[in-house]
Amino acid sequence: MKKIRKVVLAYSGGLDTSVIAKWLMQEYHCELVTFTADLGQGEELEQARQRARSLGVKEIHCKDLRREFVRDFVYPMFRANTLYEGEYLLGTSIARPLIAKHLVAIAEANGAQAIVHGATGKGNDQVRFELGIYALSPDMQVIAPWREWDLGSRSALRDFCRKHAIDMGSQSNKGPDYSIDANLLHTSYEGGELENLANAAAEEMWQKTLSPANSPDIPTSLSIEFAAGDPVALNGTRMQPENLFTELNRLGGANGIGRIDLVENRYVGIKSRGCYETPGGSILLRAHRAIEAITLDGQLAHLKDELMPRYAKLIYNGYWWSPERLALQQLIDYSQRYVNGTIELELYKGNIRIVRRHSSDSLFDAQIASFEDDDGSYNQQDAAGFIRLNALRLRQQARAGRKP
Amino acid sequence: MKKIRKVVLAYSGGLDTSVIAKWLMQEYHCELVTFTADLGQGEELEQARQRARSLGVKEIHCKDLRREFVRDFVYPMFRANTLYEGEYLLGTSIARPLIAKHLVAIAEANGAQAIVHGATGKGNDQVRFELGIYALSPDMQVIAPWREWDLGSRSALRDFCRKHAIDMGSQSNKGPDYSIDANLLHTSYEGGELENLANAAAEEMWQKTLSPANSPDIPTSLSIEFAAGDPVALNGTRMQPENLFTELNRLGGANGIGRIDLVENRYVGIKSRGCYETPGGSILLRAHRAIEAITLDGQLAHLKDELMPRYAKLIYNGYWWSPERLALQQLIDYSQRYVNGTIELELYKGNIRIVRRHSSDSLFDAQIASFEDDDGSYNQQDAAGFIRLNALRLRQQARAGRKP
Amino acid sequence: MKKIRKVVLAYSGGLDTSVIAKWLMQEYHCELVTFTADLGQGEELEQARQRARSLGVKEIHCKDLRREFVRDFVYPMFRANTLYEGEYLLGTSIARPLIAKHLVAIAEANGAQAIVHGATGKGNDQVRFELGIYALSPDMQVIAPWREWDLGSRSALRDFCRKHAIDMGSQSNKGPDYSIDANLLHTSYEGGELENLANAAAEEMWQKTLSPANSPDIPTSLSIEFAAGDPVALNGTRMQPENLFTELNRLGGANGIGRIDLVENRYVGIKSRGCYETPGGSILLRAHRAIEAITLDGQLAHLKDELMPRYAKLIYNGYWWSPERLALQQLIDYSQRYVNGTIELELYKGNIRIVRRHSSDSLFDAQIASFEDDDGSYNQQDAAGFIRLNALRLRQQARAGRKP
Amino acid sequence: MKKIRKVVLAYSGGLDTSVIAKWLMQEYHCELVTFTADLGQGEELEQARQRARSLGVKEIHCKDLRREFVRDFVYPMFRANTLYEGEYLLGTSIARPLIAKHLVAIAEANGAQAIVHGATGKGNDQVRFELGIYALSPDMQVIAPWREWDLGSRSALRDFCRKHAIDMGSQSNKGPDYSIDANLLHTSYEGGELENLANAAAEEMWQKTLSPANSPDIPTSLSIEFAAGDPVALNGTRMQPENLFTELNRLGGANGIGRIDLVENRYVGIKSRGCYETPGGSILLRAHRAIEAITLDGQLAHLKDELMPRYAKLIYNGYWWSPERLALQQLIDYSQRYVNGTIELELYKGNIRIVRRHSSDSLFDAQIASFEDDDGSYNQQDAAGFIRLNALRLRQQARAGRKP
Repeated sequence: MKKIRKVVLAYSGGLDTSVIAKWLMQEYHCELVTFTADLGQGEELEQARQRARSLGVKEIHCKDLRREFVRDFVYPMFRANTLYEGEYLLGTSIARPLIAKHLVAIAEANGAQAIVHGATGKGNDQVRFELGIYALSPDMQVIAPWREWDLGSRSALRDFCRKHAIDMGSQSNKGPDYSIDANLLHTSYEGGELENLANAAAEEMWQKTLSPANSPDIPTSLSIEFAAGDPVALNGTRMQPENLFTELNRLGGANGIGRIDLVENRYVGIKSRGCYETPGGSILLRAHRAIEAITLDGQLAHLKDELMPRYAKLIYNGYWWSPERLALQQLIDYSQRYVNGTIELELYKGNIRIVRRHSSDSLFDAQIASFEDDDGSYNQQDAAGFIRLNALRLRQQARAGRKP
Repeated sequence: MKKIRKVVLAYSGGLDTSVIAKWLMQEYHCELVTFTADLGQGEELEQARQRARSLGVKEIHCKDLRREFVRDFVYPMFRANTLYEGEYLLGTSIARPLIAKHLVAIAEANGAQAIVHGATGKGNDQVRFELGIYALSPDMQVIAPWREWDLGSRSALRDFCRKHAIDMGSQSNKGPDYSIDANLLHTSYEGGELENLANAAAEEMWQKTLSPANSPDIPTSLSIEFAAGDPVALNGTRMQPENLFTELNRLGGANGIGRIDLVENRYVGIKSRGCYETPGGSILLRAHRAIEAITLDGQLAHLKDELMPRYAKLIYNGYWWSPERLALQQLIDYSQRYVNGTIELELYKGNIRIVRRHSSDSLFDAQIASFEDDDGSYNQQDAAGFIRLNALRLRQQARAGRKP
Repeated sequence: MKKIRKVVLAYSGGLDTSVIAKWLMQEYHCELVTFTADLGQGEELEQARQRARSLGVKEIHCKDLRREFVRDFVYPMFRANTLYEGEYLLGTSIARPLIAKHLVAIAEANGAQAIVHGATGKGNDQVRFELGIYALSPDMQVIAPWREWDLGSRSALRDFCRKHAIDMGSQSNKGPDYSIDANLLHTSYEGGELENLANAAAEEMWQKTLSPANSPDIPTSLSIEFAAGDPVALNGTRMQPENLFTELNRLGGANGIGRIDLVENRYVGIKSRGCYETPGGSILLRAHRAIEAITLDGQLAHLKDELMPRYAKLIYNGYWWSPERLALQQLIDYSQRYVNGTIELELYKGNIRIVRRHSSDSLFDAQIASFEDDDGSYNQQDAAGFIRLNALRLRQQARAGRKP
Repeated sequence: MKKIRKVVLAYSGGLDTSVIAKWLMQEYHCELVTFTADLGQGEELEQARQRARSLGVKEIHCKDLRREFVRDFVYPMFRANTLYEGEYLLGTSIARPLIAKHLVAIAEANGAQAIVHGATGKGNDQVRFELGIYALSPDMQVIAPWREWDLGSRSALRDFCRKHAIDMGSQSNKGPDYSIDANLLHTSYEGGELENLANAAAEEMWQKTLSPANSPDIPTSLSIEFAAGDPVALNGTRMQPENLFTELNRLGGANGIGRIDLVENRYVGIKSRGCYETPGGSILLRAHRAIEAITLDGQLAHLKDELMPRYAKLIYNGYWWSPERLALQQLIDYSQRYVNGTIELELYKGNIRIVRRHSSDSLFDAQIASFEDDDGSYNQQDAAGFIRLNALRLRQQARAGRKP
């Protein structure tokens, strides 16, 4: 392994990664490059830049990745109606491979020998960052301070700040007791008081959504237009991915949509509790299923449904850049060729209601479906043969004495 | 094939099967036995009995199957968190195999040569009835009048009633324009004006639920206790399956829970629209996932998730009595051995919120999950090796020039 | 449905389709176009042409489809290591969609209203032909004489020939008691005396292979070069697909390779016995697995293995032209990008032995794999963490008293 | 973690574990218990016992596990027609969980704090041993000397022997260059000269089978009787599992059956080459598929086929004692209820030929399958409806302009 002279740090501007920055300079005596990405987390890049500068970092990279995030990561994932363990929309999971990609690009451009991240040794994010880094830059070294140092808790970090005169403003004193991750797709909360399953999630915790109770008493109407499985317009206005998602979040958040509180299975074998709010994503999932319902072949839809849990697990576990995820994506993307049209919805106090569907690629044929006279487009007699052949093996078994 | 001298008719007491009863006596000149089941559809068996009698039926069977329905069909299905095409809770699908079972039992006990059902030649129910009948009684004959006669529409039926002096009360005149199926699990609506996708579902259509807007302004708290994956108590009170489900429906319905409006893929290859309200079932699904989340091994949960769409499709397509459904059920039931505990929820205007989980079989371990000091129960260093071995193949590929 | 004035018949030149040709002219009073394809069945197109002419057919199409067959159907299927029910290489199944494609092209070019095939109502081929025809030409009509006429057996056909003075040469008199289908991929035998499971397959039945006992006493060496998963050269000589396969069949057949005798599950619900000889295909399957073993990522290989039975079933059941088969093909084809290299084999009396593998895209790394000193390319300590995290959930369950 | 005072060593009697025994006494200063199992590897337990004694071990356990191995591990696995990566019969993988079980039992009975195995840090066996140990005894400690010590190669081991006066007889001097594992199911060879893919496997390497060339010139006939999916008699003689398998190995080995040479994907991410000979197992697999073909429902067989690769992977990766393997086993075992009957085979120079099948539970019905007159047991007209409904969606797509 090469000697580490320069490292790139995934720097958020928060307490943990600020401590890491200082710790790295002390322990590794190496040149430090920071990278801060705007994924729509709602914090100013400028603030992170200033704090990095105040820590003595010479080379500071900040980048707005919101469009790339939605277009190349969130949208492809939603083409599969992806849910992990039936409920989680993978808001954190899908952001990590994008960050890994840019960390690698900066590290390679700057001749760094290692990449540093602030994820702990118990979580999924370490895996997602590192699998991404290794897949894209196989000889890059990874430093994960949480697995190395002796600063094992949040209070130890605060002591470190005091000792090294790191000014974290309000962050070093109080702050919520849980850890928060936010981007354009979701805001997540875990740890702290949430670790006790007897504690219900507090109303004041949620940042992206109003509660259903506090949201408007009249429904909000909305239409989403899809092209090849991706949303391209809201209420008739074409929008860039990041703007569309911002607006979808605004509408969903205002109507109390997209909160969940669940216990999930982490890749490292630990059950952990997470609270997530995904207002825009929750709407998009429902709308995407609705547009697929009229445009996608039934058997292809079922194939997608059967593969989805595995695809979700790959993303959750950090295998975005793996060949098996990429191969599944070929199948998924192919399926979306005719997923075009518009879904009208109503949002109301946490509810998403599908109101109407329109598509020039619709396979819904009212005449065939009708229980009324269909003018010969379907011969009911065909069903008799269909059923008899499908029943043949069942009858044979019953005749052989194998009753269920 | 044996000559048909006696038939058993699945008789609902409604317009269609009343016409069928009369038509059978005319066309087949056979003895007619009717069977009417109470699955919680909310109609009196007594009324069906009287109408059958008025049609001249001599042998009339009525049976309350609500307990068997919930215990032996609904609960086993919910153990798998079953959803068809991501959304449909299979309320109609799961009732058909039970009816088929009892039709067969009555036909065999009465020496009937055929079973008659009132399902059309375009839908799923014909398949579900007939696959069930054939699997349980392989030499039974099936008569499906809708595939045979020339009464091709609802108005033709009404003409038939007038001509043969069948008094259908209010049913023969007006009634909603769509076809309704109800039981303890759900009420469904399809056909008629719903066949036009431009028509939003009308508020007055829904029978089992209040709209979120009309439901109470304060949340309803609820606890569900599970044993081996099945609900056994509500708010601390042990209840028989049919009573528990009735109460769950009442609570869900009062809080605007469980309405969906979707386009689905029928087994016969037709896309059709269905509106479903499943108040109790929607609550049960969320609660069951929540209790599994803390008691079920993660990998076993993932296996279940991957098999679920196939299991759902088997039920939707009518293969409840098939060996492959039974084999999957072995796996599913085995998985539920430790799915014990209690889920606390809140219902509010269409929303189901998981508040707390309790289980003496919980695998959630706050100490291991904690980001704080865990007293040595987890060694963060292990994660480094875990990631490096999982990354090995990805790195090799990258070194070989295969960048994603 | 349009009136049938012109039909295209899939004409083999054999007894059945010759009778059908005559029968069509009698029953349908329509213009008859015949289509005969050379798929490498080893019969002269010229003979079929003459017999069609002698039957009075005016428009006769014959086409050599061997290259298209191997390149666009056989090779894509082998990319997936496709086996139906663990053993059958799908030699008949994969030919049908190609024939359907050309039947449709000729029917559309000639303004025919219907396509006629000679497959019976009990088998898979009717389904494969018709699903293909409908998928490619949705309003084309299909005539399946075996489901219509009263010529229910082979002796009835011979009577028909005598009555209508159809000269079938030797075919109308004797011939083997089973039905044979042959093409470049395989020769199949079913029906007749094979229907009795107590009858072992007779040695004289097999046409494409010597028996292992009769094949040479010394092994035949062979090398196959692959590019993107397809064989491109044999023993160092680049060859067109149809020539390569012909040579592979010659080598396999001479060495007693590729006979199987099995009972399979037909799509229509019937168990039937088939004997197949697939000399070249059996070699190709083994060689393809061997080249994948060193060039394909392990997890992607496992994904392919898990999807293969479903892909095989789609082909067996006739869904080659379905969107779900096409979507799976995207995934499969993507996986083959680096499946390049050469496999050396030995053929000997029914045995295929992999001797050596070579590939510039090999992911096999002797240094990492070695149990000897690997110069630091693998840190054995990593395995400890890998195992401990994978064991975490198992230990928790054991501690909770859940012993297997 | 408890202090280690007593350990149980999985002791084979060979060079590696003899060195480990001595090394443990030196490094851990702990009491040593050895466990040697007879799994049919063909070595005397007595010899291992004497060598252990000569090393100074006080507590020596030897046990004949052949029956348990075949009955409770091999047979259940074969019920699924299990193959890893399409070819490997899992001969080593399936033995490890059994050894783990007995190591745990002895460790717990003797109050040992740790279990020691001789598997390296690069292979699968370390994972299989340790996952088994942790699943059965979650607080047991594991010592894997190959991951700890500095004896990194075979020559280092021989030096150690010399230095510590360990007499390994012939083993310390020469011996084959590859590592061998043998039991009743198979003998495997890996490492050494096999690590170079350019080296063909040498004829003299194989221990359990004659080469096809050296095997008899006349076929050997054989019948296997199955009950509930497991073989119970050979040539009409009921036999205990271990005897039946011994005899099956003898017959297969004498006829050159069951050699493979492949490159596989290890769980730890390494591609490695293995040569395996599995004479009895190869016969059993073919025979089991043949008996299933006539007794098992087609759809259930397909479900098994689709799940098999995942089941195989679980066993290969060491998850025999996991809840997901156990759940899959429920499904598999359920499927075998009617898998009864007898298969007649012929063995000849590496070939296994299915000759006849007999079963009173056969679902094969010659009358239905027949292309001749079937006396009305199948209505060919049914096929028309069957196909038309299955084609409905394909036609709709084609009409909508979606041609494949």
